[in-house]
Amino acid sequence: MSEVRRDIVTDTWVIIDTENETLPQAEHGQHAKQDDCPFCTGNENRTPNEIYAVRHGSLPDKPGWDIRVVPNINPILRVEGELEKSGVGVYDMVSGVGANEVIIESPEHTPHFFELPTEQIELVIDTYRARIDDLHKDKRLRYILIFKNHGRAAGASTIDHPHSDLIALPATPVRVKQKLNGAREYYGYKERCLFCDIIEQEIEMADRLIFQSTMFAVFAPYASRFPFEMLIIPKRHQFTFKAIEKTEISDLATVLAKTTKVMYDVLKDPSFNLILCDSPNLLPKSNYWKTIKDDFHWHIEIIPRMYRTTGFELGTSFFINRYAPERAAGILRKNL
Amino acid sequence: MSEVRRDIVTDTWVIIDTENETLPQAEHGQHAKQDDCPFCTGNENRTPNEIYAVRHGSLPDKPGWDIRVVPNINPILRVEGELEKSGVGVYDMVSGVGANEVIIESPEHTPHFFELPTEQIELVIDTYRARIDDLHKDKRLRYILIFKNHGRAAGASTIDHPHSDLIALPATPVRVKQKLNGAREYYGYKERCLFCDIIEQEIEMADRLIFQSTMFAVFAPYASRFPFEMLIIPKRHQFTFKAIEKTEISDLATVLAKTTKVMYDVLKDPSFNLILCDSPNLLPKSNYWKTIKDDFHWHIEIIPRMYRTTGFELGTSFFINRYAPERAAGILRKNL
Repeated sequence: MSEVRRDIVTDTWVIIDTENETLPQAEHGQHAKQDDCPFCTGNENRTPNEIYAVRHGSLPDKPGWDIRVVPNINPILRVEGELEKSGVGVYDMVSGVGANEVIIESPEHTPHFFELPTEQIELVIDTYRARIDDLHKDKRLRYILIFKNHGRAAGASTIDHPHSDLIALPATPVRVKQKLNGAREYYGYKERCLFCDIIEQEIEMADRLIFQSTMFAVFAPYASRFPFEMLIIPKRHQFTFKAIEKTEISDLATVLAKTTKVMYDVLKDPSFNLILCDSPNLLPKSNYWKTIKDDFHWHIEIIPRMYRTTGFELGTSFFINRYAPERAAGILRKNL
Repeated sequence: MSEVRRDIVTDTWVIIDTENETLPQAEHGQHAKQDDCPFCTGNENRTPNEIYAVRHGSLPDKPGWDIRVVPNINPILRVEGELEKSGVGVYDMVSGVGANEVIIESPEHTPHFFELPTEQIELVIDTYRARIDDLHKDKRLRYILIFKNHGRAAGASTIDHPHSDLIALPATPVRVKQKLNGAREYYGYKERCLFCDIIEQEIEMADRLIFQSTMFAVFAPYASRFPFEMLIIPKRHQFTFKAIEKTEISDLATVLAKTTKVMYDVLKDPSFNLILCDSPNLLPKSNYWKTIKDDFHWHIEIIPRMYRTTGFELGTSFFINRYAPERAAGILRKNL
């Protein structure tokens, strides 16, 4: 039998097979060998000029850095130009204004994120914070999405060097709006943050809880769209990632390493996506401005990509998940 | 430069790279060899008992058929049981009631849909009609989705025999609701069918038109989510697929063969999904009942799967399409 579960945050549905016990298989050979990597230290001249870096006195675009942020060499959106709306008969479009950056997470070619030293992961997290803070100054950019694509099946490019992608958009995306609306609606009748209530319930029920640290909870979401999907969420209520504190960065670094390591061990190096779900860049007159501080709560989604979506997902926007989150959480807990 | 295009039907956005000229590459080796296929004639005892078949006097579950419809051997939803709603703390779920069938499109193991004789494709289309008509009698089933997954990257199973999947759902899916709402809203202020207006504009503008037959238009949608996405739509206004007429079935069979053949030729046998986008199974008290006959218009989406979605699509529900639909339509037209 299966269950059709509602994701209370986005008001979408997932069909979950609660019986299947067969582990999904990772595709192998997903890492491209790279003899001459443009992200490795020494090859700084092979990327566009850096936008931001963590350096200790060295010159821009030269060796001697811990983190570099550069424009994507083949950007899908560009910062230059006005945000123009136009019509084509019945259709509408806006010009592709935005930003498309790459966060190079280490000068060394370390293929797995969890192999980075914890202090290095802390610098990565602080760079996420700094880039969001900086890009929020440009009010044309309504949403900053930071994400990682690891492995071919997660849509990664052939560059295996640890990095994250950043895309700044001229509109708040559908999925973020769904979350904002779900959170606001819940707050409207409960006067409590939906995410805070979810954290409390997951810790109490414990069947989907993977682990918790002092400041974060990690669990398999009730309506997981994909097998072994994980959610990392700060226990402290905070609507915006830019407000993350030094002690939280340090705790999150350990949590991220532990989460990606256990996924690597259990699923044997799967392709995965990591997504930072933050609130939008609010204008003072925005609809969300009044309530968002109370009702939204930033979080990180980690999604192993062992399943290919079919015509069903494309036709419905529903998902089918053949591996129950309770079962996934149990296996991950045992392998911590 | 890129354009951020709004899909007027679903009110979602797609970022389209209008400059790139590099054709996406199909993944090879996607067809599994099958020596002992459960869908081939002679192996009827290897499937569950048939629900429907096109036969000429032969016995059920024996050879002598043109089309067979059988339950999926590993169904995600089952017809038995009551539709029960329940809560788990803050969460909601409904029991997995529905149907999950396989339409076996030929007794022979023909790997490509377009290689089937036109009369056989007509039988396939008529079987779609007959199954929707029959399943609509069960009012627990709110939406019948018929789709094809061809090739591994489109989520196909290892069975290479031509077949379609059918999933009957206990709720109208999000994407269908988005389309119904978009169509209704447009009708509300124009008093014209949105899809009829789109067909007229696409035929007139011609830059995204791939071809037209007497009764159907085939074009690359303005806000195509994927490179070489195609839309097949009847020129006659009709909200429900069950009302398709004999002459339309025959025209559509030729159109489907032509469309899948040109895609095969240009993209070198890509994986693809085909999705029949029909209206829901309406209850007399449904919200949609009054207006749907005027404002909805069934259609078929064909989506080559040469691109892997990344953390961007998962995080935003936006799509990035690196190949402009005008360019795709031009190449397809030349190769007809």
